[in-house]
Amino acid sequence: MTLQLPERVTVYEVGPRDGLQNEARQVPTADKIRFIDGLVAAGLRHIEITSFVSPRWIPQLADGAEVARGVKRRDDVHFSALVPNRRGLDAAMAAGMREIAVFLSASETHNKKNVNKTIADTLRAFREVVPPALDAGLKVRAYVSTVFGCPYEGDVDPARVVWLSRELRELGVYQISLGDTIGVANPRQVEAVMGEILAAIPLRDADGVDVVAVHFHDTQGTALANCLTAMTLGVTTIDSSVGGLGGCPYAPGASGNLATDDLVAMLHSMGIETGIDLDKLIECSRLATTFVGHELPSKYMKAHLGKQARVRRRAEREAEAGTEKAPGGE
Amino acid sequence: MTLQLPERVTVYEVGPRDGLQNEARQVPTADKIRFIDGLVAAGLRHIEITSFVSPRWIPQLADGAEVARGVKRRDDVHFSALVPNRRGLDAAMAAGMREIAVFLSASETHNKKNVNKTIADTLRAFREVVPPALDAGLKVRAYVSTVFGCPYEGDVDPARVVWLSRELRELGVYQISLGDTIGVANPRQVEAVMGEILAAIPLRDADGVDVVAVHFHDTQGTALANCLTAMTLGVTTIDSSVGGLGGCPYAPGASGNLATDDLVAMLHSMGIETGIDLDKLIECSRLATTFVGHELPSKYMKAHLGKQARVRRRAEREAEAGTEKAPGGE
Repeated sequence: MTLQLPERVTVYEVGPRDGLQNEARQVPTADKIRFIDGLVAAGLRHIEITSFVSPRWIPQLADGAEVARGVKRRDDVHFSALVPNRRGLDAAMAAGMREIAVFLSASETHNKKNVNKTIADTLRAFREVVPPALDAGLKVRAYVSTVFGCPYEGDVDPARVVWLSRELRELGVYQISLGDTIGVANPRQVEAVMGEILAAIPLRDADGVDVVAVHFHDTQGTALANCLTAMTLGVTTIDSSVGGLGGCPYAPGASGNLATDDLVAMLHSMGIETGIDLDKLIECSRLATTFVGHELPSKYMKAHLGKQARVRRRAEREAEAGTEKAPGGE
Repeated sequence: MTLQLPERVTVYEVGPRDGLQNEARQVPTADKIRFIDGLVAAGLRHIEITSFVSPRWIPQLADGAEVARGVKRRDDVHFSALVPNRRGLDAAMAAGMREIAVFLSASETHNKKNVNKTIADTLRAFREVVPPALDAGLKVRAYVSTVFGCPYEGDVDPARVVWLSRELRELGVYQISLGDTIGVANPRQVEAVMGEILAAIPLRDADGVDVVAVHFHDTQGTALANCLTAMTLGVTTIDSSVGGLGGCPYAPGASGNLATDDLVAMLHSMGIETGIDLDKLIECSRLATTFVGHELPSKYMKAHLGKQARVRRRAEREAEAGTEKAPGGE
């Protein structure tokens, strides 16, 4: 057997929205803008920068319009914002957004707890948001959460995800991000569930744009193994969050979102291109660490910064001892 | 493509040795014994319990003989101890050990830094240890480190690993554990390197015993993806360390050894048997956390304990409110 992996993967960065919305600290708007500009400088081309939801729900992102107006726009960079309803869409468009994302859950109970609506009512609400967005020339992405398991219902029927995905495609959604919201997916399940979905929904559209993306959480450390499996199935758009920001509102220190750093490091080590500068990305993760005031879960970042610190200490010791630097690495 | 995975995996637990030797704190002997007995109760059947090296090198394991004598022996449990030389072998045998492990590096520079010998001299030293161990009826395992990359030399030629593995098999070593000592392996590399090794060294002996095992470090979060890849190549013995103890003497908080908890959770979720009781294993990880006085890297443990705490808090809130417990999970 030889691992069949893509030559290039598109990393869809969700840290500024999905990450920061779950943090206790309110990050100043100017810092958010600097952070997003840094992500662009690191090579990220798809970034979910904020959401246009009621500030009563998510006060952390009440400055969505200022953030959207403040970030440097570039033709080759695709910023998106989460939008729950028509009011959010109007605000997003007023702030100049060219891409929005809608969200629902594959599990009825989780959807109800998350947005206080049935799935059917959520789809009905999408009909008030997606068509006017498309009419205005925006692109619309959709997140389907709890695809691989629900904290309330346990197993989720892949047939339901297939049905939802078809509804979303009919609505005009260009890409569906399949989420392992509680981080319980395993590679064998990814293969089985994605197999059912990809048998019904084409992986790419006629223009070669990815219709299906994956959004794995690293709660139990399996996200990269799941990404690997998804890539062997042909998936080439993967969601992640710089430093591993956010994704788990319940347990500080526990992992939610897959860290972009860890994903990109693994992809690059396998020769898979992302267009991302890993060193610059780590600088963004360091910046995010200062925002949130606690360690972030990215393992690559810790390994990288630890290595830098060791190299620095050795250089200092050698300078003190007046010796020449030893050849080779560490 | 369908993932071809084994029905059963043997987890080789290295926490009590590889884990505790890298910790600053000296764990009392009685605690170590209680810890190892707990691992046996959790279902682990291969446990490296200590090493018989000079206490000047590794004071943390100076009580090797007491530990070896103190643990409860069972016919179905295989305890091993690391042994660097003839003196260590004699001490291990005097303490009743029935299995020992020897170690060397696939990289000349790393071997020199680690044991202050060339690889050729290390193999010569093995000739003073392995034959008498075998003559006394002991089993001998070998660790080959830096198989997937060396901190000093970078890439390591798989041909060197093949050569070393053959030498070790000729010496009578029953199992060779291939180590990604600095955690830089990626799935594509695992497939390539293991492919070369397995083309030269049979995966199992005539009795069906695993000749090749893998020992991945999770420094960059790729260990489970690498384990998955190794399993698709037929590997069914995987080293790991309860809680993710040890494996990285340089950076506290950074990850070294793959956490047994994370490995077993992924294996079980895929229906792969290990014979291990995951709840009891987590109790061992919690115990290890109290030994070392800091958080351990296991993600599954954090997720599991966080979930337990949430369930407990909810039950308390409901008890206070006098309401009945809601049905379903969390």
